[in-house]
Amino acid sequence: MKKLGVGLIGTGYMGKCHALAWNAVAATFGTGLRPQLVHLGEISDDLARQRADEFGFERHSGDWRAVIADPEVDIVSITSPNQFHIEMAIAAFKAGKHVWCEKPMATKLVDAQAMQTAAKSAGTLAVLGYNYIQSPAIRQIEALVKDGRIGRVTHVRIEMDEDFMAAPDMPFSFKHRAESGYGALDDFAVHPLSLLHTIVGLPVEVIVDMAKPSEMLKDGQGEDRLIETHDIASALLRFDGGLTGILAVNRSAWGRKGRIALQILGTEGSILFDQERANEFQLYLRNDPGDIQGFRTILIAPTHAPYNHFLPAPGHGLGFNDLKVIEAHEIIKALEGDTARLIDFDQGLKIETVVHAMARSRHDNAWVKIGRES
Amino acid sequence: MKKLGVGLIGTGYMGKCHALAWNAVAATFGTGLRPQLVHLGEISDDLARQRADEFGFERHSGDWRAVIADPEVDIVSITSPNQFHIEMAIAAFKAGKHVWCEKPMATKLVDAQAMQTAAKSAGTLAVLGYNYIQSPAIRQIEALVKDGRIGRVTHVRIEMDEDFMAAPDMPFSFKHRAESGYGALDDFAVHPLSLLHTIVGLPVEVIVDMAKPSEMLKDGQGEDRLIETHDIASALLRFDGGLTGILAVNRSAWGRKGRIALQILGTEGSILFDQERANEFQLYLRNDPGDIQGFRTILIAPTHAPYNHFLPAPGHGLGFNDLKVIEAHEIIKALEGDTARLIDFDQGLKIETVVHAMARSRHDNAWVKIGRES
Amino acid sequence: MKKLGVGLIGTGYMGKCHALAWNAVAATFGTGLRPQLVHLGEISDDLARQRADEFGFERHSGDWRAVIADPEVDIVSITSPNQFHIEMAIAAFKAGKHVWCEKPMATKLVDAQAMQTAAKSAGTLAVLGYNYIQSPAIRQIEALVKDGRIGRVTHVRIEMDEDFMAAPDMPFSFKHRAESGYGALDDFAVHPLSLLHTIVGLPVEVIVDMAKPSEMLKDGQGEDRLIETHDIASALLRFDGGLTGILAVNRSAWGRKGRIALQILGTEGSILFDQERANEFQLYLRNDPGDIQGFRTILIAPTHAPYNHFLPAPGHGLGFNDLKVIEAHEIIKALEGDTARLIDFDQGLKIETVVHAMARSRHDNAWVKIGRES
Amino acid sequence: MKKLGVGLIGTGYMGKCHALAWNAVAATFGTGLRPQLVHLGEISDDLARQRADEFGFERHSGDWRAVIADPEVDIVSITSPNQFHIEMAIAAFKAGKHVWCEKPMATKLVDAQAMQTAAKSAGTLAVLGYNYIQSPAIRQIEALVKDGRIGRVTHVRIEMDEDFMAAPDMPFSFKHRAESGYGALDDFAVHPLSLLHTIVGLPVEVIVDMAKPSEMLKDGQGEDRLIETHDIASALLRFDGGLTGILAVNRSAWGRKGRIALQILGTEGSILFDQERANEFQLYLRNDPGDIQGFRTILIAPTHAPYNHFLPAPGHGLGFNDLKVIEAHEIIKALEGDTARLIDFDQGLKIETVVHAMARSRHDNAWVKIGRES
Repeated sequence: MKKLGVGLIGTGYMGKCHALAWNAVAATFGTGLRPQLVHLGEISDDLARQRADEFGFERHSGDWRAVIADPEVDIVSITSPNQFHIEMAIAAFKAGKHVWCEKPMATKLVDAQAMQTAAKSAGTLAVLGYNYIQSPAIRQIEALVKDGRIGRVTHVRIEMDEDFMAAPDMPFSFKHRAESGYGALDDFAVHPLSLLHTIVGLPVEVIVDMAKPSEMLKDGQGEDRLIETHDIASALLRFDGGLTGILAVNRSAWGRKGRIALQILGTEGSILFDQERANEFQLYLRNDPGDIQGFRTILIAPTHAPYNHFLPAPGHGLGFNDLKVIEAHEIIKALEGDTARLIDFDQGLKIETVVHAMARSRHDNAWVKIGRES
Repeated sequence: MKKLGVGLIGTGYMGKCHALAWNAVAATFGTGLRPQLVHLGEISDDLARQRADEFGFERHSGDWRAVIADPEVDIVSITSPNQFHIEMAIAAFKAGKHVWCEKPMATKLVDAQAMQTAAKSAGTLAVLGYNYIQSPAIRQIEALVKDGRIGRVTHVRIEMDEDFMAAPDMPFSFKHRAESGYGALDDFAVHPLSLLHTIVGLPVEVIVDMAKPSEMLKDGQGEDRLIETHDIASALLRFDGGLTGILAVNRSAWGRKGRIALQILGTEGSILFDQERANEFQLYLRNDPGDIQGFRTILIAPTHAPYNHFLPAPGHGLGFNDLKVIEAHEIIKALEGDTARLIDFDQGLKIETVVHAMARSRHDNAWVKIGRES
Repeated sequence: MKKLGVGLIGTGYMGKCHALAWNAVAATFGTGLRPQLVHLGEISDDLARQRADEFGFERHSGDWRAVIADPEVDIVSITSPNQFHIEMAIAAFKAGKHVWCEKPMATKLVDAQAMQTAAKSAGTLAVLGYNYIQSPAIRQIEALVKDGRIGRVTHVRIEMDEDFMAAPDMPFSFKHRAESGYGALDDFAVHPLSLLHTIVGLPVEVIVDMAKPSEMLKDGQGEDRLIETHDIASALLRFDGGLTGILAVNRSAWGRKGRIALQILGTEGSILFDQERANEFQLYLRNDPGDIQGFRTILIAPTHAPYNHFLPAPGHGLGFNDLKVIEAHEIIKALEGDTARLIDFDQGLKIETVVHAMARSRHDNAWVKIGRES
Repeated sequence: MKKLGVGLIGTGYMGKCHALAWNAVAATFGTGLRPQLVHLGEISDDLARQRADEFGFERHSGDWRAVIADPEVDIVSITSPNQFHIEMAIAAFKAGKHVWCEKPMATKLVDAQAMQTAAKSAGTLAVLGYNYIQSPAIRQIEALVKDGRIGRVTHVRIEMDEDFMAAPDMPFSFKHRAESGYGALDDFAVHPLSLLHTIVGLPVEVIVDMAKPSEMLKDGQGEDRLIETHDIASALLRFDGGLTGILAVNRSAWGRKGRIALQILGTEGSILFDQERANEFQLYLRNDPGDIQGFRTILIAPTHAPYNHFLPAPGHGLGFNDLKVIEAHEIIKALEGDTARLIDFDQGLKIETVVHAMARSRHDNAWVKIGRES
């Protein structure tokens, strides 16, 4: 069996998720190409050693450059904080490596553009970690839409809400400072946009409002600090061809834990999805007999590939970490020359362009056309 | 027991609903003032006679003016098509009658203003039929918000969706013509606005987009006709004090039958409601113990007045028509000099002012401040 | 329009519900026969006068015999406590009146048998107040089952749970004493049995277990008292033809308010219903396309008669009290000679026979065949 | 890091699930003891080689005895068809290996007893694959019950339903023959019993009914064949101390895919769970304020260990396969001398004893006391 040498930079939440995926993908899918966990990089030798032991990597290093330089590493998983992506990704491309980088590409649009340029020059695989599009439910929803089973799409609404910033007595932190970004917009918006991109395409014109649930918080010293980021952003969307939609994100929405609620309305039916119940979705078809019309709640089953590679029986459910295993499998498919379902740096740049257009719309207090905002 | 002489104009859906409410309110609430169904008006003598028999009215007439002129009629229920409200309401006020008029007041803002002026001059009771605010669930939600049990409100989203205009092969009809109004905006928006008005107040600035699911339909003669109204409208809302929100309406949303979905987010918790399951609502409180935090699904119970006047046991449920009985009871309370929960012509005019500002925002493709749009 | 003279005995929860129904049925259904609220009986003149005023009855009396004797009374609504049904019903039959009696007929089987005999002799209409079978959702479920749309029924489960007896610190009361009956079994079991009777028929063999959540309670004097009734009863059911089922009732189930949860499994599909969300039911059909199989949540709509007589639009919902209006309409249909959907004294006796067989099964700790238990 | 040599026999659904778990447990939990995938056994060399490649095992064999004989194998995962468990487990115990065997232990009670005896003699770890008890939701439910947060348990109901045997036109197969077992009873009942065992203990007395949805099926040759197994079984349960319950299993319940629905009622509250939505459960507490009482829907979160080892954020969800990773971690804890949450052969034998008592109850058509049935 052919080996795929894997390097991993960063071992936080997403780093661990990559490691689990690289560990599981061959057994899950019976892949021809077998990942070999070669080299793990962290910010210190000690942490790198500990994580390499836990995650099953052969080598480790306190310097991420050693991972990229390792000749046995074919692909580099970049899961460091967003501001470091650009340097690592460009170095990896220069070394001729494939790159699997967590989203967003960068905090500044110009950096994302530079990364895309480097990827194009390298000609290697350049993939962003948009795992929600890998969900069997989302795949089935996309198939239903693209096969026309709800007719022509007439309207979309998508909401992403969590509550980790909701506490009105939390201490002032980095995420409240402008240097961390706009707030909910860049924390969240790429996720719903990646789903729209996959299912109906990206908007061409947007207007956005942003809001702060509170104005002030106390910092660790008990001093009042002005909050500079916006936990709430709401957008109206226009797409080519007259389609309209709404996108809303909120990281201070009490009770919402991992909500990505999608409503897709068509001329022949409707589809609903919520990531908090990711193993099901709902479908309404207007051509059902009149006395039994209603939203079907469809549990993900072996018929909804690639669920079948995890479980032979319906109704047992995948977890969030399984999405990364599917993503790793798509990468292997791409490396083997098969068609793969992935968001590459070209597409990722388009998604991030929309986010920055949204921010400009808020600044201008006006509609912004995506093509004209750069 | 003192009598309240009731006149009814119009016997469609809402007219029947008024008749049922006038029939039921005394037995339900044990009111001091007892409605007496005196005079029913319809567009012909025959129809008026038939409906008077069915609904239990003593007299009937093919001319609505006779209802208003009847000296035994104290209050007039106006449930005719919207364009006729102005003439009937103003005539009723001139005759010194109380008026219970279905919403909206009028299709043109200037007409609504004239109706409000007439009501003010008459000094009689001038009530609009906003029955959703009478729901025990909505009353409990309002109480929770106003008592601060979810803290300060930080964001609201409200959606009203039905599917009666969704069929892509329906024949071109009056509702597709501009003279019927803007479309979903004036069909629906007053309902969610009445709930916002009741719970958090009305917005002071809006931006709206509208869309048509289809461009053309065939009329009865098989001719292609251009659709002039918009089945979809989406709005961003700004309120005094920094609160923001989203309002979305859609009358072509397959599978939605009577959806009014409300999300109210606060600093201490969140509330969810959907009119399709009107006998329950959901509440999240951040101060619940950490291992058992979640949205409570609260079934309406006798503790949520005035449910207790209908049923002594929880979990049995009220129906849509019961909301009108509650509204009739509030009218009786107002007539008896008690505090009542009603939307009068003053408040109704404010709601309709927002709707027309929304339409202007769409026309201008820009944010509109409510105070400045007239 | 022909009049139907109505007498009402008892004005508690169910008495008020009857009064509301008699008030509403003509306007709701446009009936040919119009109820006239003639005579109301209560246990004192004062209470009778007050209720007659509230409910709109012409005459009142502190003696129920006067109601039955009133020559203008054609039908008597009996809503008094269960132990008084027998005397009142037999008197009414002897006076040649129609009877609409709340269920159960009686607390003892021999009394129910006597009531049925009296009804047979009188030849008048003898109807029991089983309003849950009138629900549009239940009617649609019955139609689906009887039309074979879920194939042959293979299994049923029905649970009825409330929590009004759940408090472990409630004072010892009449409902804890054996003279009040078995407990949950006779409080509740007739309801699920009436639904089974309507949809799949009654069981022919049963085994039952009963349990007490607590053994002792304190009475008003602070004395410990032994609880004699059983708040929990669970039954296995066998029907003719090999069908089996489960029936469970519990009046100490915290959080359950008006739950009647029904699962009907067939060779071609399944149906789910819960009275706490009475305006919807769920249907699974195995012949749906493989990738979109799931339970449809069907909101009750005008297509599900007689919802259409209350509301012309789907998704707006009926309430519990509306079921009684439908029942009143069925009575009027029966009086006019039409086929009506009602549980008469013959059928009611069969239902109560099953309840008493269940109690004997618990006593014998063994299966009991229904035919052999009397 | 110390190694734990793993042998795996069988590579079907559960075999793959074991392999994935052994691959993932160290990275997920950062265990001190690191599983090393040493030897995989299958029924042929070719299949063994293929699976060893996919699953990442070092060695493979077409004879399961070689796996057990391998000196580097410390623990043997037995995932072969149930009838082979006895021979393999006893051989493994004789070789001094730890055993992780899929449930049930055996199809005959006497075999299970022999396996337990062998385990006792060996003194090695003897664990059964009851992974549902590992679910964070179930762990939290158990903690709530054992901490008394719903008071004393007064009633339990548990249902396990799937539909893989529901098709009325499926071909007659091994699972329809008596030699495959009783039917749903031994396919399913151990699962709900393992949950009862964990949360409230096992019943001491049972009565069971079983049923066949159909009598006959056609085999592959088009011949009519009598069905010998029962897809439906329903039981009443009695526990020590007066607690009662219901257990129902059905493998022909259309629309049910992986349903294990649990209702636990207590004197202070209630808990609901359904495996089809395994990342949430519901809790009702009677001491919540009166106007906001309702079932909380609680999403599994880092506070519900060991979810936190998989994901740092709430609401993202575990999958079915993750339960096996948790189980593997418990095994490692047990091997390291820590308290572990596992069902060993002693407890497993008790569970299977109940199943066989249930079958006897059906045979005798009478209540059976568990202690007296052997």
